[in-house]
Amino acid sequence: MEAQKALYLPTTSKVKELINSEIIGKIKYLEFKAGFPGRFTYDHWMYDLSLGGGALYGSATYTIEYLQYLFDHPNLTIDGTCIKCSTGADEICNFQLKINNSILASSTIAMNVALKNEAVFYGELGYIVVPNYWKSNQLDLYLDDGSHSHYDFPYQSEFVYEIEHIHQCINNGRLESPIMNKEKTIETIKLVEQLYQKWK
Amino acid sequence: MEAQKALYLPTTSKVKELINSEIIGKIKYLEFKAGFPGRFTYDHWMYDLSLGGGALYGSATYTIEYLQYLFDHPNLTIDGTCIKCSTGADEICNFQLKINNSILASSTIAMNVALKNEAVFYGELGYIVVPNYWKSNQLDLYLDDGSHSHYDFPYQSEFVYEIEHIHQCINNGRLESPIMNKEKTIETIKLVEQLYQKWK
Repeated sequence: MEAQKALYLPTTSKVKELINSEIIGKIKYLEFKAGFPGRFTYDHWMYDLSLGGGALYGSATYTIEYLQYLFDHPNLTIDGTCIKCSTGADEICNFQLKINNSILASSTIAMNVALKNEAVFYGELGYIVVPNYWKSNQLDLYLDDGSHSHYDFPYQSEFVYEIEHIHQCINNGRLESPIMNKEKTIETIKLVEQLYQKWK
Repeated sequence: MEAQKALYLPTTSKVKELINSEIIGKIKYLEFKAGFPGRFTYDHWMYDLSLGGGALYGSATYTIEYLQYLFDHPNLTIDGTCIKCSTGADEICNFQLKINNSILASSTIAMNVALKNEAVFYGELGYIVVPNYWKSNQLDLYLDDGSHSHYDFPYQSEFVYEIEHIHQCINNGRLESPIMNKEKTIETIKLVEQLYQKWK
């Protein structure tokens, strides 16, 4: 099983529950933003494409696998645009996913600028905001009737839930997670690779 | 001259002034969102591609010409993704523009869902938020040092400035606006058409 902390967070479960309850109606648009400037210098492997660097390789799997989980293994297609820096690595990228050909998701990952780091789920009746979606411990629900609900899911570390899940799998004799299985990982890698090849 | 109210707004001039002053440092990412659900029914021409409908045809020129003005006729390349509805028209689209191959802009236009209608300019030292950028009468400037400035530009109608500009052009014997000239319009149409053909 690939490391994927985001799918096991209580916040993520709550997002899935809210979406499935259709409290915000049918989802139409999703927006993901993650910016982390100044964390790496140009000689870091994150800026070396031959070592698996670049914004897309570094973080796109978070968005894609999050969507696979939330929408129960949907049909996904990908496209997008990036800006490369002097090392040849994409230091900022925006990619879009069509989810079951009915929902549009746009995800921006930036190594060169601070962004409002959040995921927003826009539905016909309101929207959900998840700050720092890859390690979220809270979310906000806004409905078109003007109501607002805040949910907190405090944790000691965002890795706890993933580790607990691995323990559960091992204790149950599982060699593979039913949530993040080999099939989902391979599909994700294919989508990322498709964009990577387009940008070459 | 093509109708283009956004470029003549005092708010837009202020955005240009703030960007040029580099108060938020070098710009790295721009985000535009416009959602207007329920305004048109499926038998409206906005949903008929043969009549020039679709989210892209309807509103993409606002984003593109706004960028042409702000960045003094930059080199622009376009790509993007859309979701089509039963009429064949794109009812939601996200397109990206590379500005001088160094700044990434992402623009979402939706006829099927309400979005947070705003433009956000992310720089190395802060960001600018422009609500309803195509008819904005205010903006907010947030700097990384924690400071925040709000600017108001009240108007009677957002069309006043465009009309005044047309009057000035005519009074000065101009047959073409120096701000929104034929060249910019044709370049914009080419970019929109490129994406439209990709989505066919």
